Amino acid sequence: MPAVYEGAVQDLIDELGELPGIGPKSAQRMAFHILSSDTASVERLIDALRAVKARVRFCTTCGNIAEAEQCTICADPRRDQSVICVVEEPKDVVAIERTREYRGLYHVLGGAIDPINGVGPDDLRVRELFARLGGEVGEVILATDPDVVGEATAAYLTRMLRTMDVPVSRLASGLPVGSDLEYADEVTLGRAFEGRRRVDA
Amino acid sequence: MPAVYEGAVQDLIDELGELPGIGPKSAQRMAFHILSSDTASVERLIDALRAVKARVRFCTTCGNIAEAEQCTICADPRRDQSVICVVEEPKDVVAIERTREYRGLYHVLGGAIDPINGVGPDDLRVRELFARLGGEVGEVILATDPDVVGEATAAYLTRMLRTMDVPVSRLASGLPVGSDLEYADEVTLGRAFEGRRRVDA
Repeated sequence: MPAVYEGAVQDLIDELGELPGIGPKSAQRMAFHILSSDTASVERLIDALRAVKARVRFCTTCGNIAEAEQCTICADPRRDQSVICVVEEPKDVVAIERTREYRGLYHVLGGAIDPINGVGPDDLRVRELFARLGGEVGEVILATDPDVVGEATAAYLTRMLRTMDVPVSRLASGLPVGSDLEYADEVTLGRAFEGRRRVDA
Repeated sequence: MPAVYEGAVQDLIDELGELPGIGPKSAQRMAFHILSSDTASVERLIDALRAVKARVRFCTTCGNIAEAEQCTICADPRRDQSVICVVEEPKDVVAIERTREYRGLYHVLGGAIDPINGVGPDDLRVRELFARLGGEVGEVILATDPDVVGEATAAYLTRMLRTMDVPVSRLASGLPVGSDLEYADEVTLGRAFEGRRRVDA
C-alpha cells in the first residue's frame, strides 16, 4: 500500500508496519485506534516501550530475559541446579514454567540452527551451554521445537554433547492430550507408535 | 493468558494487547521483537506515536484527519465544492482518493448507526453534515459500507435528507470487477441484477 495519509499518521503506520505480523491494514487500524484514544493511554504505551528497552536485558547465565544480571530462575537457589533444559526462545521458558512440572534450570539458545536462513551454531548460545556443563549438571533436556529446524538443532546438540559426560534427553513427541487420533498427522502418529510405553508392567 | 513474564516485558505485552486486533500471542511476539530491536528504531516508533497525538486532529469541516484546522481536501480550492461524499471513517476517504475518480468533498461520520452497539445518529457527525448543506451543495453521495450497519445508516440519511432540497445518491452495489460470478454471494448477485444497466442504447 503506498503512502496515502498525511505526514504524522503515515509515519506511524510505517513504524507500526515494521513490527512482526503487522501488515499495512493492521498498522492502519492500530494507527487510527491510537489517534482516537486518549493521550494518557498512549503515554502508558510509550512508557512501557521505554521501560523494556531500559530495564530488560538477557540473563548472562542462561540467556532468558532478565531485569538483573541473572534472571529470576537462575537466581533462585531452590531450582534444581543439576538439570538444564535447552529451549529456543524466552517464550518457551514461559510455556514450560506454566506446566509447573519442571524445577531445573534453562538455557535459551536464541533460535534454532537454520542453514536456509543463515543461522549456524555460532549464531546461537551453544558455546555458553557447553561452558555450563561439568560439575553439578547431571542431565541436559533438549526442548527445542518439534519442527524441522528444532529437530535439526536437537540432533546437532546430541552429537556435540556425546563428547561431554552428561546424559541428554529429548522431550517426547506424540499425540497431544485431548486430541483426536483420526485427525493426527502421519508423522505425529508415527512418533506416538515409536515412543509407545508399556502400561501393563 | 495470565501474566507470566517479569515486570517490564509483561507491562509492554499488556499495553500492546490493548490495540485493536492484537491478541496476547501477537502482543508477545511484538514485545520480543521490540526487546531485541535496537533502541533507535524503538525511539522512532515512540516519536511517531507522540507526533500523531500532538499534530493530528480532525478537520473541523468534514471530520477527516488533518494536521491543521482543515484537512488538505477541504482546504484545496480545486476540489468540487458542490458534491459531498459521506463516508464512515477517514480510511474510506483514503480508499476513494486512491481511485482518482472523485474530485468533490467528503464528510466523515465517524462510524455507522449501530443500535446493537449503542451508536445512534447523535454519536455520529450527522448534524455537522446537515449544517454543510444548502448553498453550493448540489449532490450528496452516500458511501457508507455495503454491510448491515452501513446500509442502515444510508437509509437513515436518505430519509432525513428528503427534507433538504438536495439530490442524494448511493454507491452502486454489484459484482466486484475481476471476480467470478460463480462465487458471488446471493445478495451481491441479486443487487447486480437489480442495478443492471442497458448497454445497447
